[in-house]
Amino acid sequence: MRALTAHSRPLVALVMGDPAGISPELTARLLADCDMRAAADILAIGDARVLATGAHVAGVDLDIGVVREFEAPSERPLLLDLGHLDPADVAPGAPSAQGGRFALANLDCALILAMEEHVSAVCFTPFNKLAMRLAAPHYEDESTYVADLVGQAAQASEFNIIEGVVWNARVTSHVPLKEVASHITQERILRAIRLTADTMRRAGFAAPRLAVAALNPHAGDGGMFGREEIEIIAPAIERARTEQLRVEGPFPSDTVFLRARNGHFDAVVTMYHDQGQIAMKLMGFDRGVTYLGGFPFPICTAAHGTAYEIAGKGLADPGGMRAALRLAAQLASPVR
Amino acid sequence: MRALTAHSRPLVALVMGDPAGISPELTARLLADCDMRAAADILAIGDARVLATGAHVAGVDLDIGVVREFEAPSERPLLLDLGHLDPADVAPGAPSAQGGRFALANLDCALILAMEEHVSAVCFTPFNKLAMRLAAPHYEDESTYVADLVGQAAQASEFNIIEGVVWNARVTSHVPLKEVASHITQERILRAIRLTADTMRRAGFAAPRLAVAALNPHAGDGGMFGREEIEIIAPAIERARTEQLRVEGPFPSDTVFLRARNGHFDAVVTMYHDQGQIAMKLMGFDRGVTYLGGFPFPICTAAHGTAYEIAGKGLADPGGMRAALRLAAQLASPVR
Repeated sequence: MRALTAHSRPLVALVMGDPAGISPELTARLLADCDMRAAADILAIGDARVLATGAHVAGVDLDIGVVREFEAPSERPLLLDLGHLDPADVAPGAPSAQGGRFALANLDCALILAMEEHVSAVCFTPFNKLAMRLAAPHYEDESTYVADLVGQAAQASEFNIIEGVVWNARVTSHVPLKEVASHITQERILRAIRLTADTMRRAGFAAPRLAVAALNPHAGDGGMFGREEIEIIAPAIERARTEQLRVEGPFPSDTVFLRARNGHFDAVVTMYHDQGQIAMKLMGFDRGVTYLGGFPFPICTAAHGTAYEIAGKGLADPGGMRAALRLAAQLASPVR
Repeated sequence: MRALTAHSRPLVALVMGDPAGISPELTARLLADCDMRAAADILAIGDARVLATGAHVAGVDLDIGVVREFEAPSERPLLLDLGHLDPADVAPGAPSAQGGRFALANLDCALILAMEEHVSAVCFTPFNKLAMRLAAPHYEDESTYVADLVGQAAQASEFNIIEGVVWNARVTSHVPLKEVASHITQERILRAIRLTADTMRRAGFAAPRLAVAALNPHAGDGGMFGREEIEIIAPAIERARTEQLRVEGPFPSDTVFLRARNGHFDAVVTMYHDQGQIAMKLMGFDRGVTYLGGFPFPICTAAHGTAYEIAGKGLADPGGMRAALRLAAQLASPVR
């Protein structure tokens, strides 16, 4: 892993997301935050005029440098100013093609810098899905967009993290429910387990304790309500154990998160999107972090969205983005 | 609805469940509870010797009558003593065929009394599924057992209730996940909506506000991840609305319970077992009530189980069973 500066802080690209929401304000808050500046060398990517409006909304003075081409920050953060959006051209509080193009241009730039190993992690402030589609009609979600650009489609995997509570990884994601079962294979489960354990070790867990959720109600109840637990999930867990991974299950999905919340597990690997998301959102994932795993470099963002309704009001809570940037920096640091 | 006594309290059969767990203690606590005695005329069904051990564990004096054949209680609760289990024959804290037979015999008796309209509701203390299967190998769950006996298989539907927070009904239940989508029909959804609204009105909601969960992640995201929302669920909701029911959706299942918890809805109708159960258990359903709907009379129990680990210790919390008995009495009362 390169792109560490002389003082050993990882260089994280901070991508400005949708300009019509709270992203400009959040970017400004992070750049002004001394904890964030201590955790990483930050290269923000966006437009100086949009960032200036964010700093005004946040009520912070930005002590940063501005560059027009890539340059590694040293003492203070830098903004890579692409000069591509006049904030007057985007109405606050609504999705637009301009807003989507702005966010995607910033993301593209960050991903290219990461692929060329100029930066060692990518952290982005919230996107708006509708704006992304207005800008890029084939846009499906962040994960597939990044996978297309970076060329790792088969490997992408999303983690949802409530700091200090639980990590959640899933075997399938944006798949119709009726097709979920056909996507559940030993290989996919094993890959999710390995990626989770590996990522969590890099995030500071010495030996993360993983629980694997069942697919069927009551974990299939001994085969009465489905046999995937017996034929697919349990054998995958057994194989993971032969690799010295701490992993248990399959557990009924309606109690596994209670056990994780009580401290029995550090992570839950779920079989499908809502199985994890129902639990994570009830447990406070609006304050959580999303990590796109399986790429050659860490990619993190806050779990929350663009919050159009409070855009420009100075009310945005930077907690989720602070956690996202902290995690990106941690995952980009050399393995201990 | 008959079986109302002269003083207009409904007559509720209180079925003793698994004798090796906390059921004897809970039965005794309910029979000694003046709020419960005010809410319903109670006919407990079980064995006087097992109940005596429960009263001893609970530390209560039982002011009840004991009969060997059906008789309607008036001033004080009655125990219908079937005389079929010496507590010495069942080891506490473990499932057994004797324990399962005891619970099923009590349940059978209560269901027959209800079908013959001698009692107007059935409330049972916790069963143990393994014990039930040891006693009745074809036993699947309470709901199908009751449906078999009462003869209403096509109509049975389970509600999970956290008092004062939310009701949850589901369109499918103990079905393998891969078969769920094929069971989702407009008719089934409409039936669940109607039954939920009707039951809640009888439980005291003047105009219950129902939310219907989507089947697919992000509610299918406009058809990108499944079309059931567009082709089946939304039309079913539209049909329900023409019947003057207050029902909205389909909503993504990972946020609909947050909205219910915040007071936007009184009930959530979910498409499959874990969709509701993951949320309900995280929201405190261990203190909740299960109601088996769609039968000619109300059947209620606590959401929690037999709690073998605290059997005989006097530690059982009667909160869930109190709520269950209160609901049974309410649903058995004449519609206001």
